[in-house]
Amino acid sequence: MRGRPRDPGNDTAILRAALDMFIQGGVEGTSIEQVAKRAGVARLTVYRRWASKELLLAQAIEFGRDRFMNPAEVLAMFADGEVTRAKLVEILVRAVGDPDFRQLVGRLASTATSHPELMRAYSETYVRPRKEVALQVFRLLQEHGELPLGIDLEMLMESLAGVVTYVMLMNPVRREPEEVRAYLNRFLDLVISPARTSNPG
Amino acid sequence: MRGRPRDPGNDTAILRAALDMFIQGGVEGTSIEQVAKRAGVARLTVYRRWASKELLLAQAIEFGRDRFMNPAEVLAMFADGEVTRAKLVEILVRAVGDPDFRQLVGRLASTATSHPELMRAYSETYVRPRKEVALQVFRLLQEHGELPLGIDLEMLMESLAGVVTYVMLMNPVRREPEEVRAYLNRFLDLVISPARTSNPG
Repeated sequence: MRGRPRDPGNDTAILRAALDMFIQGGVEGTSIEQVAKRAGVARLTVYRRWASKELLLAQAIEFGRDRFMNPAEVLAMFADGEVTRAKLVEILVRAVGDPDFRQLVGRLASTATSHPELMRAYSETYVRPRKEVALQVFRLLQEHGELPLGIDLEMLMESLAGVVTYVMLMNPVRREPEEVRAYLNRFLDLVISPARTSNPG
Repeated sequence: MRGRPRDPGNDTAILRAALDMFIQGGVEGTSIEQVAKRAGVARLTVYRRWASKELLLAQAIEFGRDRFMNPAEVLAMFADGEVTRAKLVEILVRAVGDPDFRQLVGRLASTATSHPELMRAYSETYVRPRKEVALQVFRLLQEHGELPLGIDLEMLMESLAGVVTYVMLMNPVRREPEEVRAYLNRFLDLVISPARTSNPG
């Protein structure tokens, strides 16, 4: 069997199975044996490609990078036509409401201290491109008079990420979309006081 | 042995052991057997008091409620003398820098979907009293001209909690105190624009 070319279909199946298992059970709830079973491949097929469960999970997180809030799609939504704060809020409400996304972020939050390489994979392949897109969207909103000029856009993005993460994670029950919408609007009202928004310089 | 009065010293030792185990290993990494061993009691002593691991952990979280950012102590720090934004930031920097606190919050973040009763115990016994104290501190800061009047204090507190949680959890490496201090000040600058702070009405 040595030297046989790798089947890329196997890789995809393995990475998808690993990501799903991580979302459901975290690092402790994932084993290479069960990933192989779920992906329908031999255990050795997984071990030959990934030296450890952690390396497999880091790549599975990268593999799933467009599964939630695909950056290119988000940008396209703003590129044509309606550039409003309301649209930004709707995209965030949808992300917060996705139970898989909520669990993924929760799992990652608990691995930051024990498995920093997973958080690093998530930060680099997931958070960074989304923050870049968020900055582009904020600049478009500024051009359309929906955000005040001169505001600290980077900190706005950071704190919005914080508020969204907090709403998703630190609640015993999942919040209803209307509640999340009102919450995010209240945060934006706090940051973007009407007096500052009406000032064009 | 039946009818023998409970030893309150045992309860304390059990709850402390359970909280420590949860911080280190989460729900999956905690077992009643190991909690008993760590607390130096018989397994049956634990089982007689707590019907499940989840009930034990919920109470252990309540038991540890004054271990991080003790609300009464925080309030006392502001009651006498110096009521400044800088002092508020220092208290938060200290909380963010506590590795045990970071791990506890991370563990809870990942249990919100799988064990909502633990997040509920944390929210009710830990978050709520701290938010009440935060509001009192914010009102004191307003009286001392460090926060603008008319600002949405509840949302300020909510988003500050979000920013603090985000800084603690969603990073592959622990941030240095100077970095956290600069970050929190930048957030407060975003929310409390100088123009609004100088307006006394």
